[in-house]
This record gives sequence, C-alpha cells and structure tokens, in this order.
Amino acid sequence: MARAADEQVIFQPMGRRAEIQPGQNLLQLAQSAGVGIEAPCGGKGLCGKCLVRPEGPVTQPTAAEKALLDAEADKGLRLACQCAMPQGGAVWVPPESRSGRQVILTSGTSGELELDQAVRAYQVRVPPASLENPETAQGRLFSALAQAAGDGLAAPPELPFNLLRSLPGLLAQGGDLSLSLRQGREIVDLTPASQGLPLGLAVDLGTTTVVAYLCDLDSGELLAVSSEMNPQVPYGDDVIARMSLCVSEPQGLALLSRAAVECVNHLAADACAQAGADPGRILECLMVGNSAMHHIFLALEPASLAMAPYAPVVRGPVEVKARQAGLALGREAWLHWLPLKAGFVGADIVAAALAVGADNIDEPTLLLDLGTNGEMVLAAGGRMLACSTAAGPALEGGHIGQGMRGAPGAVERVFLEPGAVEPDLQVIGGEPAVGLCGSGLVSLISCLLEAGILLPTGGFGQQGGKGLVRSGEHGLEFVAALAKHTGHGRDLVLTSRDVSEVQLAKAAIRAGAEVLMSEMGVEHLSRVLLAGAFGNYLDPAEAARIGLFPPLPVEYIQGVGNAAGVGAVMALLSDRQRRRAQKLAQDMGYVELSGHGLFQELFVDSMAFPSEDA
Amino acid sequence: MARAADEQVIFQPMGRRAEIQPGQNLLQLAQSAGVGIEAPCGGKGLCGKCLVRPEGPVTQPTAAEKALLDAEADKGLRLACQCAMPQGGAVWVPPESRSGRQVILTSGTSGELELDQAVRAYQVRVPPASLENPETAQGRLFSALAQAAGDGLAAPPELPFNLLRSLPGLLAQGGDLSLSLRQGREIVDLTPASQGLPLGLAVDLGTTTVVAYLCDLDSGELLAVSSEMNPQVPYGDDVIARMSLCVSEPQGLALLSRAAVECVNHLAADACAQAGADPGRILECLMVGNSAMHHIFLALEPASLAMAPYAPVVRGPVEVKARQAGLALGREAWLHWLPLKAGFVGADIVAAALAVGADNIDEPTLLLDLGTNGEMVLAAGGRMLACSTAAGPALEGGHIGQGMRGAPGAVERVFLEPGAVEPDLQVIGGEPAVGLCGSGLVSLISCLLEAGILLPTGGFGQQGGKGLVRSGEHGLEFVAALAKHTGHGRDLVLTSRDVSEVQLAKAAIRAGAEVLMSEMGVEHLSRVLLAGAFGNYLDPAEAARIGLFPPLPVEYIQGVGNAAGVGAVMALLSDRQRRRAQKLAQDMGYVELSGHGLFQELFVDSMAFPSEDA
Repeated sequence: MARAADEQVIFQPMGRRAEIQPGQNLLQLAQSAGVGIEAPCGGKGLCGKCLVRPEGPVTQPTAAEKALLDAEADKGLRLACQCAMPQGGAVWVPPESRSGRQVILTSGTSGELELDQAVRAYQVRVPPASLENPETAQGRLFSALAQAAGDGLAAPPELPFNLLRSLPGLLAQGGDLSLSLRQGREIVDLTPASQGLPLGLAVDLGTTTVVAYLCDLDSGELLAVSSEMNPQVPYGDDVIARMSLCVSEPQGLALLSRAAVECVNHLAADACAQAGADPGRILECLMVGNSAMHHIFLALEPASLAMAPYAPVVRGPVEVKARQAGLALGREAWLHWLPLKAGFVGADIVAAALAVGADNIDEPTLLLDLGTNGEMVLAAGGRMLACSTAAGPALEGGHIGQGMRGAPGAVERVFLEPGAVEPDLQVIGGEPAVGLCGSGLVSLISCLLEAGILLPTGGFGQQGGKGLVRSGEHGLEFVAALAKHTGHGRDLVLTSRDVSEVQLAKAAIRAGAEVLMSEMGVEHLSRVLLAGAFGNYLDPAEAARIGLFPPLPVEYIQGVGNAAGVGAVMALLSDRQRRRAQKLAQDMGYVELSGHGLFQELFVDSMAFPSEDA
Repeated sequence: MARAADEQVIFQPMGRRAEIQPGQNLLQLAQSAGVGIEAPCGGKGLCGKCLVRPEGPVTQPTAAEKALLDAEADKGLRLACQCAMPQGGAVWVPPESRSGRQVILTSGTSGELELDQAVRAYQVRVPPASLENPETAQGRLFSALAQAAGDGLAAPPELPFNLLRSLPGLLAQGGDLSLSLRQGREIVDLTPASQGLPLGLAVDLGTTTVVAYLCDLDSGELLAVSSEMNPQVPYGDDVIARMSLCVSEPQGLALLSRAAVECVNHLAADACAQAGADPGRILECLMVGNSAMHHIFLALEPASLAMAPYAPVVRGPVEVKARQAGLALGREAWLHWLPLKAGFVGADIVAAALAVGADNIDEPTLLLDLGTNGEMVLAAGGRMLACSTAAGPALEGGHIGQGMRGAPGAVERVFLEPGAVEPDLQVIGGEPAVGLCGSGLVSLISCLLEAGILLPTGGFGQQGGKGLVRSGEHGLEFVAALAKHTGHGRDLVLTSRDVSEVQLAKAAIRAGAEVLMSEMGVEHLSRVLLAGAFGNYLDPAEAARIGLFPPLPVEYIQGVGNAAGVGAVMALLSDRQRRRAQKLAQDMGYVELSGHGLFQELFVDSMAFPSEDA
C-alpha cells in the first residue's frame, strides 16, 4: 500500500517538504526544511511577520493571532509560529514573509550570505551645465558619482556607449539619477531615480533541471526562485548524447545553446513576475553548471570535452556581457560563469565546494554530487582533490527497467517490515506508484539486502519476501507492487539487470572515492556530504547500506541540498566569494580516472554489496 | 577668358595638383604637391621604383627608362624621375609606387609618421591538447602568444567572446594562427595564418566632405584614399541646420547618424576595393571631425552643443567597438574618436593641432581652419589657446549670390591686369565659369581692392574696371564675366551684399585671432597656417590683402593641406600620438567669444578692408 504523502507539509513556492512532528508549528517545520521565514520576535507571536497561507486543515487561531491579524485573517493568512497542520498539506509563503538570506536549502552549510556585491547602486544628482560649470554631461555625471561613491570609484569609470547615448535624454528629464556601478569601474545602468534597485540572477544549469534564483543585489534578499526542466532533455538525457549532437549535426550546438539560453530567459522572466520586477533590472547574472552545460550554453564547441584529454575550450571564469550570450536582462548586465576545474569537473562542483567551504575543511570530508557522472571532491587539511566517475544514470533511475525521475508517481522510499507480505512504498505526490526514482531504488535495494532477499553478490536469495522474487523476462525479479496497486496497471518490478546497473554505478563512485583517499593519504572519512537534489532525498543509512562510499558512521553522512545553487548565490552576492571560487578551482587537484590502474582494481572490488555484518 | 587648367599636373588618386615648373620632372612635381612616390635612389633613374602612368603628352623615355622598363613600357608606365609633362595632365600613381608615410599633403609639417600601433599582429602556433599538456584551448593560445609577443603582452590578455567561440573551429583546421593584439591586452582578431595583416582606417568626417585613409597597420603604408560628399548635406548645409533637425525631428538624429555611418562604411569598402583588401581586416578606426559631426555620428543628442554654454555630452576620447557605432569593419575592431576641446572646437582642430605640432611651437603661430565656423588655435611658447568664430559660410561660397563649392565650374582664382577690360578667371576643371567658390571670391575681392574698384569700406568706387560696376537688383554689382562666357548663360556678378557677407566673415575671424593674441599677450604673429581644403587653395597674399588676419609678411602664411586628416592618420598609426592629442586637448585653453566684450569691439573695427598702403 502506498503510504499517504499527507503527513508532510510542503512549503511553496520553494517546494520544500517537512515531515510533521507532533507539537511543531509551521515556523519550526519551515526551519527544519530550510525555508527561511521572517520571525524577528523569535516565534513568540509578537511581531506578526511570519505570515503564511496554509492550504488544508489547520489548528484554531490563537489569541496572539486574533490580536495581530484582524482583517488579514479573512484572507486565510496565519502566523506560522501560531499555526500547525496536524494532517499536513501545502503552505504558501508570501514574498514579504520570506527571509532573504537563508531560504535556500543549505542544511549543514547555512549561515548568513556575505554581501560584497559586484554591482552597487548610487543615487546621484547631476547639475545642468552652466557658464560657470560648462563641463560635459559625462563629466558632470562622473563628478556626481565621485561624490556619491567616494573611495568605491575607480577614476575614471567606464560608461558603456549605449548608456552614454541615453545620458542627454535622462538629464533632460531632470538630474536625479540612479546609477549602478560594477566593481567600482563600469557604469552598468542609468535610470531616473524613481526606478528600483539592481537585481541579480544566479542560475544552476543542470543537465536535467535548471534553477534560477532572483536576488535583490542591494540587500541580498532572495526574491523568487524559478525552475524548470532543461529543454535540452528531449535531445538527449545525458551530456554525452548532447555533445554528440553538437559534434554530428551542423546546427546542433546552435540549437542546444539557444534552448538553454531561452530557458534562462524564461526563468528570469518568471522569477521577475513572481517578484513584480522587470527583467531589465537584472544587472548581474551568475551561472554554474557542468562543463558540457557551460560549453553548450556559451555556444563553445564541446568536441574537446568528449575525447581525451577532455580539455575544455576555456576554464577560468568567463565574463561576458549577458546580451552577447543571448540573455535578455539589463542592457549592460554581465554574465559571470564560475570556473570549471576540468572537462568532467564543472562549475557546479566548484560552486558546491564553495558552498560547503571545501577550501577550509580539516577533517577528511567527501563532497559527492550524484548525477549521471558521480563527481566528487575529497577535502582534508585545506587540500582538495577531485575526480569524476562515469557512474551512468542508474542512480537517477536511468537505464533501470521501471526507473523514472523524481516526479509524481515515483517511489522515493521503501519500507519492508520483517515478514511483511509486500513492501510499503512512499510515492511522490501520494499517487499510485508508476516507477522507481533514484532514492526509491537505493531504498528498495537497501531493504532487500537487509531482508536477505538480495545477496551481497547482487543475486536474489530465497529467504523472506514470500514468493515476491519470481522468474521474469530478464531472469529473477522482485515484485515491489502488484499491478492492482500501481498507477500504470503493471507490476512494479526490480530485475537482476537493474541490480547490476546499480552495482556498476555505486562501484564507480566508491572506487573513485577510494582513489582520492589513496592519493591524499586519507584512511578514513570523517564526513560525507551528499549534494544535489538526489543526494538530498537519499537516506544516508540506505546509501551506506548499499556501499556507495567507504564505511563511516551514518550520522556523519548528510545531504547538503542544492549546494551548487547555494554556491551560485554566494558568488552572485559577493565578489570575494568569486575570487575564492577561482582560487579554490585552481588549488583543487584533479585525478583523471580513465586509464587509472588503481581505479580499475578498486572498481572490480567494489561491485559487491557490503555483507550485513560489514 | 577662362585660363586653361592644363598647366598643372594632377596626381591621382590623391587629386593633388602641382603647377608645372620648367625643367621639373614628375617626381619633383609630386614632391612639391606632397605626393609621396618611392624613390630610394633619390631620383637618379637607378632603382626603377617610381613608376607612374602619365595621361597626356610626355617627354621621350630616357636611356635609364629603356634599360629598366622593357615590357612595362608597353603598359604606359614611366619612371617619374625620368619623365616630364610640358603641357600638364593627369598622372596615376599606382599603389606599389606610393611611399606609405608621406603621401598626404602635409606642406610644412611633413616628415615620417611615427609607428606605435594600437594593433599589432603576431603569428602563433598553438599545439593540440595532449595527455602531457591537457591545457584548455584558450590556455594554449595564450601560451603561444606569450612566446610570440614577449614583453608586449599584458597577462592575461582579453579574448572577446566571439573570438573564443571561433577558437575550437580554428584550431581544428590546424594550429597556425595570425593573432592581432590591441594595446598589449585585447585580442581583436584571430584568423588562419594565411590571412593578411591588420588594416587601419582614419576618417576625417567633415561637414561637407568625408575622407577615409586606409593604411596597412603593420608598415604604416597608406594603401588607398577615398572621399565623398557628406550625405547629410541634403539635410542642411551647416552644423546648425543639422543639429536643429536632430532636436526638432524625433528620428532626425537617427537619420543623420545612419547617413554618416553608412558613408564611412561605403568609403571603407571603396578604399578596400582600391587596395584589393577586405573591410573585415580593418581592425582599428580613428575618426576626427567637429563636435557636431562627432555627436551626430555617434548618435549622441547634440542639443547641448547648440545652446549656451555649448557643453558636449562627452569630450575625452571616445573608444567604442566599431560595430556598436554601426561600422562594418572587423568584428572586434575598435573605433577611437580623438577628443573634442569644446562645443565648437572639435576633434578636427585637435587633429590639425597635432599635425602641425602646436604643442611644440615657440614663435606665435595662428592655425586657422576656415569653414562655416572659423576655428583657430594660437600657439606660442608651448601654450595653446583656441576659439571658434561664427564666421558663417561666406568664405566657402555660401550666402553669396553666385557662390558655390569648389567643384568644376567654380572660379578659384581671378587675375585683373591694370587697365584690363575684364578679369581673367581660373576655373576648376577648365570649364566655363558658373559661380564663385571661396578662394575665387577672396581672389576677386582682393583684385578689386587692388584696382581701387572696391573701397576699404566695402563700397564700389568708380575708377578702373571700365563700366564693369553697374547697378543691379541689390544695389551696385561687379560683373566678373558676361553671360556669353559663363556656363549657365547668365552674367557672373559680385554684389554689394556679397561683399558685406565676406566682410562679416573676415571680421569675425580677424577679431577672434586678435582676442587670442590679446589673451596670450602676443603682439605680432610669426606665422599663419591655413588648414583645410579651402585654406590650401587660398592665395596667402590675397587672404592678407582682404585682412583675414592680423598683418604679417606674406611668406609666413602657408597652407597646410588637410591637417585634420594628417592628424587622424598620425593618431591611427601611433598610440603615443593619441596620448599626445589627448594631452594637447587638455592643455589647450579655450576662449568663448559669445558675449566677449573685446571680441565685439574688435569685430566692428575689423569690418573695413585694409587700405592699399596698410
């Protein structure tokens, strides 16, 4: 039977979920889910700032709410600190209640984001020319800016041609202007003083999902998040397929590049619509993504990434006017891509390493980004070493008979009580199951190993499960749900071949981790950080159970959410963090695993699952 | 009777003329006209380099030519040092005979042009990536450049996004590239090594005429010159009319800007066609022109130039990617406009001052650019002071009853022998006269003053001319040619009103010059340099006769040709000269004449023509 999903609260528009805990109010649940809600009074029902709109059964309004809310109560608003949802449901967090700096899921890496903005706004008053001051329009603007910016101004600043052209018209409307200055040396925006402050956009361009974070560059506040499927997916699930298209089709690169650029434009427009803002006010865009996404987005021929020695066209941070890359943001906005480390260790890993502070970690810590390629960084004593394993898509549900992405209908967690007739499935969206996503797959295999139904070799044993192992088209298979309980009217099964795919993937990752440990002389891991959406939904104990990484106590394994996205926002809001990311990428070592003797050996050794008493 | 123009030699394609001197060969005539012809042997008939193609009667080939020319003689080629044209005619100077650095008319300011190019080309070999050298494509390019450029390279250079995009494709064709580097820090061109060297374009954007000079940036050689009428002329003869259009019509500025930009594109294409080159190889463009032409070309709202305090939008050198200004040159070419000094002292004056070395002149020297506005610089003891007089267009033939530009049919010089029945007219193109251009007008007035037909007050006297002064529609008028001798079938006359226009213009110029002298404490001029095409055709003695400037011996008055064009080419070929121009513009003082008390006083005093014995 599918376990109902309504024992969770889902916070929107972030889409973050929290399991209901008896006695916890919505503010506490939000905090546990990494959703930042303003609560200056500390959740005492005094300030009235933590307004949310619950959708579902709620506890009765408290005296504090009655005193503070009055008419607002009519609109369905509640104070998060005074309200609980005993049966779960959805909660809309209006923009004005969101706390700007902590709303991104950063479990384990939270804290204030540092502000050292590339772009800063100044309000200036430019006097008209007179016989006493017959200075040029540009000269008067620069003088006004020098007064306003003081030491923050390189002398003289650059004024892009298009802004110079707009200057006489702006001055004719009056001399009060809002001016945005980038890195103390280039004016990137000039508007009448009434037009708002500069915005920034951080984008995590994933192979599968693209996420955009819209921030107020002045306060650092996160205004909106928007995400959608990478529109390149129909052209190929993984980066290899997409790079092949670029190499084989004359217009392939242009096509895929345009798709990604349009996607970012669309996300920018959507995030701005949420925040009631104009995309033309976005004056800085920071992007991260793997090397293939980086090259394809920038329309850089990715052929060299696809063959040894996998050399990128460019590695160091790419800075280009956003419009040159096709982005429809502010006319003079810049796009900054964080640097790549290598062909298969991209800006997303650099950003994740930045988010977890890998350059500052002492105890041996493995940062693992699980995707089609299992990219990882081992950090210890301030040193960092990275590698990428061609783990394949099994851990994302790819190449699995009934695998699927983490979408409604996907089994995300499996519970198998000793002696149970069939497993209990937790399905995304609470719907009947139609497939297994990565975390469900790991959960299922973990349960089967625990129950002895699956043997350490990867073969099916005979004990337990009461006949749930049967002979199928491709050898033995385990029936996770019968057709009558599924959403597609077929039995949901895990085949021997599926198990082999998972074995190959986890062996690659574990062997990669052990190569890094060997190269750095590390014997035991103190911590494993699982990055990316999948890493976040993976149960640490189950991941350990299938032997995904070298053994360590389960309490030292933790999800760190979308660390790449957090790193991107950090770098969006701070030039210091950009420089730090660049240094981090330079200082990070890299091990190429293809043709690496030790890797081959460890890979074979890692195929088996750990035995129960391991 | 029109004096035949065939006692001159006209060198093409430069269009420079020289009066035939007995015994002078074509090489000597070319030198006197400022036309540079290669002659490494010094004109001894030994090297065979000074090939030209005379069109008209020539002297017989010499023994030296017979020895050197052989088959070439068949094509009509001669050695300039061995050939004369006793009756004048045209001489085509083929590109291979032109000496690159002296072909522009720079009388009095000649000399080698300094080479210190903004853009320099390097040949580089970029190795493929290998397991031993898995560096990025960009990294390998930079390493190869560092080897080739040595100290000339800022580390690291900038590689524009579009060139970065082209890099993988170029490297796939082989690693031998030609790379052009600007100011040691930005790569502005990448091509296969077989593609030629970088070209540069210097443009003098005059109110009436636009001239473009195409140079080989490597050698400094002038490859071609192309000029045409400013296509803005139909929208207004002078800058005031054009600025008014920009202010009054919503699309006026865009229209005029586009016309000028298209004109430069057309000249670039034409010059390249002459030289057999591709406009895409032009990697640097340097422009000069007056402040109104500057603003309109760059589509900068010129309204502030047209009213007190006549403040430009921007003054300092404007550097912008040529494509952003609408120019169809190299994809990453830069456009550099020399700085303006003030609203009515533009980049053309700065360039002319550069060409004559005004920052280095000791004896009081007046540099005078005669056009609609008489702009002038007084230089003495290393100091410079500029002003602009609203002289009006009379000295260009404007606002004159039968005035015209210096085109075929225009009277350019007048000879009136004592007691002659009618004046002898020298007409451009040797055609029947149809009007008076500026130099013809000054020449005519000078003759009439000399003959006593015109009085110092500007009124017509009764002596001489035998009835050529008559009563016309607008008072007394002088008949310069009867209808039967003109090209338009009407009498060619100079009216009292025409004389008044010239008086107003010359009084403004002279008063401006005297204000500058007064401000700088200069009592006598040592030298007057007449810049611009008009200044060059003006006869110094005649200009002095009408009192155009304070008195000085006629031998110290000289035309300096298109000094603005020379300054533009100097700055195109040398970054040092650009910096010098910028410093010169900063160091130059400026006197605003509008509302200047002394100017008003001197202006009135200067209305009369000097009496014969002055």
